[in-house]
Amino acid sequence: MRIILDAMSGDFPAEAVKGALKASKDLTGREDITLVLVGDEAKIREEMKNEGKECPKNIEILHTEDVLTMEDDPMTIMKEKRNSSMGLALTLLKEGADAMISAGNTGALHAGSSLIVRKLKGVRRSALATILPLAKPMLLMDCGANPVVTADVLCQWAILGSIYMESVMGVTEPRVGLLNNGAEEHKGTPVAVEAHHALKGMPVNFVGNVEGKEVPTGVCDVLVTDGFTGNILLKYTEGFGKFFLKKLKTLFSANFRSKLAYLLTKKSLMGIKEQFNASKYGGALFLGLAKPVIKSHGSSDAEAIRASVHQAVAFVEQNTIEKMADQIRRAVSSESKPAEA
Amino acid sequence: MRIILDAMSGDFPAEAVKGALKASKDLTGREDITLVLVGDEAKIREEMKNEGKECPKNIEILHTEDVLTMEDDPMTIMKEKRNSSMGLALTLLKEGADAMISAGNTGALHAGSSLIVRKLKGVRRSALATILPLAKPMLLMDCGANPVVTADVLCQWAILGSIYMESVMGVTEPRVGLLNNGAEEHKGTPVAVEAHHALKGMPVNFVGNVEGKEVPTGVCDVLVTDGFTGNILLKYTEGFGKFFLKKLKTLFSANFRSKLAYLLTKKSLMGIKEQFNASKYGGALFLGLAKPVIKSHGSSDAEAIRASVHQAVAFVEQNTIEKMADQIRRAVSSESKPAEA
Repeated sequence: MRIILDAMSGDFPAEAVKGALKASKDLTGREDITLVLVGDEAKIREEMKNEGKECPKNIEILHTEDVLTMEDDPMTIMKEKRNSSMGLALTLLKEGADAMISAGNTGALHAGSSLIVRKLKGVRRSALATILPLAKPMLLMDCGANPVVTADVLCQWAILGSIYMESVMGVTEPRVGLLNNGAEEHKGTPVAVEAHHALKGMPVNFVGNVEGKEVPTGVCDVLVTDGFTGNILLKYTEGFGKFFLKKLKTLFSANFRSKLAYLLTKKSLMGIKEQFNASKYGGALFLGLAKPVIKSHGSSDAEAIRASVHQAVAFVEQNTIEKMADQIRRAVSSESKPAEA
Repeated sequence: MRIILDAMSGDFPAEAVKGALKASKDLTGREDITLVLVGDEAKIREEMKNEGKECPKNIEILHTEDVLTMEDDPMTIMKEKRNSSMGLALTLLKEGADAMISAGNTGALHAGSSLIVRKLKGVRRSALATILPLAKPMLLMDCGANPVVTADVLCQWAILGSIYMESVMGVTEPRVGLLNNGAEEHKGTPVAVEAHHALKGMPVNFVGNVEGKEVPTGVCDVLVTDGFTGNILLKYTEGFGKFFLKKLKTLFSANFRSKLAYLLTKKSLMGIKEQFNASKYGGALFLGLAKPVIKSHGSSDAEAIRASVHQAVAFVEQNTIEKMADQIRRAVSSESKPAEA
């Protein structure tokens, strides 16, 4: 198994190298797994030296000096930035590697993975899926790659998301919810109404519409929606969490009594903060592609990169892509059959 | 000035009566203002007696035994429930009163106010607008009455929302944001892209796209979006707030140290809870109607009803409807003019 890591496109390339070293150590003894770091070889080796390490046996380095930045137009990945660390990493994936991880420009990763790696046969649109760490880990898809969707697309995502949660996260019969502005099936946009009806006929454990107030309560394992609403929900979660923690900080620094209270609860408070750290489950995913592409957060630290490597290994070991291909093939073929009498 | 209160349709009619008594006391000396309670006269008088009060001089009661329930089909307000407390209250408003408040069925209030009270001339769609109490009070519109909108509708709401925030909430040059899945003007659904462009030409203080993570930070005073996304954002705020407070409760009840910490910060914690209490600003509003219609939360207590009465008085005293009518007339007439050379 070959896992490709774009080591240069995130905000902190040094953390990518550190994370790779940690993952390499975790994978000692797994001689079937090689980690390929794509990026500036001198810089990568220097960072390894800073960590007091030589390049481990299970890490290979593919040299390129070119980097696609956060400011680059996404489509440059197909042209002048084709030999950037991200472009080369996607090419390696296309040409035989098993999974790819990048903390770089999301738009470029979406464009590059769609055009270089390509979608699974029959998949209408690949989705950007993210784990929201609320009452239970919940896969939210789409998170911004597809602002406008059709009911058919949402139905396919329900299948892909269910397979991911079962295969990689170990959830039995994952419950699929449809994000909506009401519980009743006639509620929502025309797309949401059509999707509600269609999801009832899909081979997934559909639990119906999920309203905003239910999102944090763990009522479903996969939450499907358009990328416009999903992106706003995801980013609002981040913003609202920060806002709330800031309020708490103000509360605890108000006076002597509150400062004492802070000391008494510091450890538990850190626990709350850790609960909202989604990166322990790895990165976001482009689901519906022919190969696993993982998007780590731009500001990923070594632990986040390490978690993404483990996520990639689980993804591959569980034959997740094969399961997805199989289910999508069945769904597409049942669509083209005439309805039974 | 006559303010009509549907006293029966909320979850707690007794609280509506109590709230009306509180507001009546606040308005002592304002002989120009009468509060009209619509509902079962015997029950209303009994509740007043429970509070040790006779019916005050500035309260009138219009008797009806019929109530429209939360489970009723919204359209019954035009037919078999026309003489319910909500139906009669809207009729009084139509026939000369100045503002109306109800804590009842939102769908019925939307249908009834659109069909009985009617929209302001030139307004395409009335919006359900709610104050989100985050870093600053922010008017979110729409909150669920219109799941699908056009750019033109969003532009009109920007005008209506700005006038409300300036006129009733005293915000100078309210900043209007467009909820979107990215900061750049090409981001979002086709409607969002068109709305971004059109809002630049409107007579409002448009500050551009607002991403989910910015929503809690106070970057705008009016946030316009479709009712699908707005409803999800509003209800998620409620759900996420509850989730977070529950986490805190678990934290504080964990052990002796944390229980002590709770005692030390109890007062400030209550302050955080109070910050998230939107009802201090009154109820939600249907904006774009010919008269003010205020939707108090179904579970409103006396304080929430009292705040809604004050909100109604400010709405009327500031000539808010006249300002809205005037701005909409100008906007519509500038649309129909040919573009200047």
